[in-house]
Amino acid sequence: MDYRAELEEKGSRAKQAARKLATLPTNIKNQALLNMADALEEHQETLLAANARDMENGRAKGLSSSLLDRLLLNGSRIKAMADGLRQIAALPDPVGEVLGMWRRPNGLEIGKVRVPLGVIGIIYEARPNVTVDAAGLCLKAGNAVILRGGSEAINSNIAITKVITRAAQAAGIPEGAIQLIETTDRQAVNALLRLNRYLDVIIPRGSAGLIQTVVENSTIPVIETGIGVCHTFVDASADLAMAQEIAFNAKVSRPAVCNAMETLLVHRAIAAEFLPSALERLHQAGVELRGCPETRRYHPAVKPATDEDWATEYLDLILAVKVVGNLEEALEHIAAYGTRHSEAIVTRDYDNARRFLQEVDAAAVYVNASTRFTDGFEFGFGAEIGISTQKLHARGPMGLPELTSIKYIVYGNGQIR
Amino acid sequence: MDYRAELEEKGSRAKQAARKLATLPTNIKNQALLNMADALEEHQETLLAANARDMENGRAKGLSSSLLDRLLLNGSRIKAMADGLRQIAALPDPVGEVLGMWRRPNGLEIGKVRVPLGVIGIIYEARPNVTVDAAGLCLKAGNAVILRGGSEAINSNIAITKVITRAAQAAGIPEGAIQLIETTDRQAVNALLRLNRYLDVIIPRGSAGLIQTVVENSTIPVIETGIGVCHTFVDASADLAMAQEIAFNAKVSRPAVCNAMETLLVHRAIAAEFLPSALERLHQAGVELRGCPETRRYHPAVKPATDEDWATEYLDLILAVKVVGNLEEALEHIAAYGTRHSEAIVTRDYDNARRFLQEVDAAAVYVNASTRFTDGFEFGFGAEIGISTQKLHARGPMGLPELTSIKYIVYGNGQIR
Repeated sequence: MDYRAELEEKGSRAKQAARKLATLPTNIKNQALLNMADALEEHQETLLAANARDMENGRAKGLSSSLLDRLLLNGSRIKAMADGLRQIAALPDPVGEVLGMWRRPNGLEIGKVRVPLGVIGIIYEARPNVTVDAAGLCLKAGNAVILRGGSEAINSNIAITKVITRAAQAAGIPEGAIQLIETTDRQAVNALLRLNRYLDVIIPRGSAGLIQTVVENSTIPVIETGIGVCHTFVDASADLAMAQEIAFNAKVSRPAVCNAMETLLVHRAIAAEFLPSALERLHQAGVELRGCPETRRYHPAVKPATDEDWATEYLDLILAVKVVGNLEEALEHIAAYGTRHSEAIVTRDYDNARRFLQEVDAAAVYVNASTRFTDGFEFGFGAEIGISTQKLHARGPMGLPELTSIKYIVYGNGQIR
Repeated sequence: MDYRAELEEKGSRAKQAARKLATLPTNIKNQALLNMADALEEHQETLLAANARDMENGRAKGLSSSLLDRLLLNGSRIKAMADGLRQIAALPDPVGEVLGMWRRPNGLEIGKVRVPLGVIGIIYEARPNVTVDAAGLCLKAGNAVILRGGSEAINSNIAITKVITRAAQAAGIPEGAIQLIETTDRQAVNALLRLNRYLDVIIPRGSAGLIQTVVENSTIPVIETGIGVCHTFVDASADLAMAQEIAFNAKVSRPAVCNAMETLLVHRAIAAEFLPSALERLHQAGVELRGCPETRRYHPAVKPATDEDWATEYLDLILAVKVVGNLEEALEHIAAYGTRHSEAIVTRDYDNARRFLQEVDAAAVYVNASTRFTDGFEFGFGAEIGISTQKLHARGPMGLPELTSIKYIVYGNGQIR
């Protein structure tokens, strides 16, 4: 089916809403967020009923238990979504912040002011809480949003959007500020990706496949999020106990997220001392180990790693391990196989720490800490719409300021050029 | 012909160079810029000879005199290019600037640091000075650049690139930092636009058609530059003498640039007083006038404007003129037909000035000044790679900081999550 007409209309409504949102006072936006939070809790039964239909369809379609778990709503998850909105209400409004103001020799006064991006399209997968998060963050930053969730969660998303848009409008948010694409047909995504007239940016959140599709087909500017082939390099001078804790945490604490470690690089000088116990602990935790020939000497459970392993984001309890001869080799490996997400070195050497921080090209580079900290909340931003792995506009965890643009305001008294 | 292999090689060389450039000391970059400036002047004869071939081909192809003028190099233009590089050398190095640093409750210290974007592709048209400007700005910001100039200037561009890359390398700039695509085949552009593995951003500079092609075909993030359907709104309370100066300047001082005015909006209350002399002055200056029926009453030379006129970037001595009933109507017109570049109001009314600044969605919004000031030099940035008309990453005049990204550097002492 051709969704262009339907999406044109949604886009046009969003653009009109965005004009009003851009100058809406902070207290109206905050009241809307609080209303939305309350409404989610008040309409819990409706949301759970819609979610039950998604769960039933999901089971019938044979979704994996981990996908079903992501899809599931319950009382505490609805409470968490509502609390998330209340947290967003408590954050400072980024819109209107003056980033600088200066006077030119000709008397012109030029100010650089934060403004909303305009209309944001967000394309995401299974978890229905993204619907609430994304709507809340976009609203606080003064943007209209067009949401396109995964087909598995369509009933939940429709119910959530209905509840929150009604609550937002009661506080004075214009119609069209939060819209959901209600069809699950993939053609609708293709139509969305070409709505340059109305949308200012597309943010895909989800699998590598989804992100790739969006990047290849969108004529609207895209912020890529999320793919993380993250490394931890244990240097020759590392505190080995610390290195083991960091490596274990980076792999095991939550293997399915993008800031989890996928490859462990170990300096040859301490490999014999470090690897046997570190690998044993990972093995005991159920981690499948794949290593270079040298690594395999240190633990019988290590299977041979192929070249593909170095480039794979497992998102699972699987770890690639490689012994390297020096820092240079570790840097080369990371440059060749890393995805510019999060990279860590464990070292006591000042020069190596400094060189790693300077030379590694990634959104977040760590010395003596777990890559798992790459996260908007852990960074202190109070919120997160995703983690950008591109270099344009935003890099790393994206909070409210990353959902804004700027404009120059110029005060004159008759200047001509 | 298939240029993928050739461009893959250029991309790979650029990416290797970018890794080295990212940590290159400022003094080496500055020395390279000064070397490049000197070399342009030393090899003036070579450059003029190459340019003469382009001019000859251009005349044979029947290029317009304005295109031939853009293409032309002479002693003073070469001096200007060299001086431009010396100015870039004198600007502060944006790379390494710490934009913020904070400590988290768990003891992690997180810093936000400016880093180069990486590899930038620049696609542009006739003027050979863009080759020098773009190479100099990208180099200073620590980026490798792949240049693709217009076919008309190919001999000039090849000669310039040869001279400046040799001079840069003599100062210690890595091979591959500045590269030109030497074929004029359009297929090479299509191949360039899909080099995601190597390029971080594409900046098109030129006609609306060029920019459209790049936006539609690039899978690499794009910064759109330049299209400007700029308005000046003369409010009821305007100082009419000031308004005439500003309008005249915005249209006539340099009509072929993107910050020139294309449409004049006039409040009905002062139309009869303002328009006759303002239109006469523009008419005397050779401006073709196209107006709404009301405008046409005030000067016999005004032809009827069509709906297309409101949406057209003339880049020429042509002006569309419309009488509006109030500020609201002016804002609606600008929202409907503006390209978010530069918009001005001439007024003595405080509330109207404030409302115009807040509600107009454009890169630069002016009160009582000519839109012609939207320019990196006029804004005090010391340099300009173009004027972004999109909202992502950079908006308005782009100087050196707009050619950078950021990364987070995180100092820990064993933190795990």
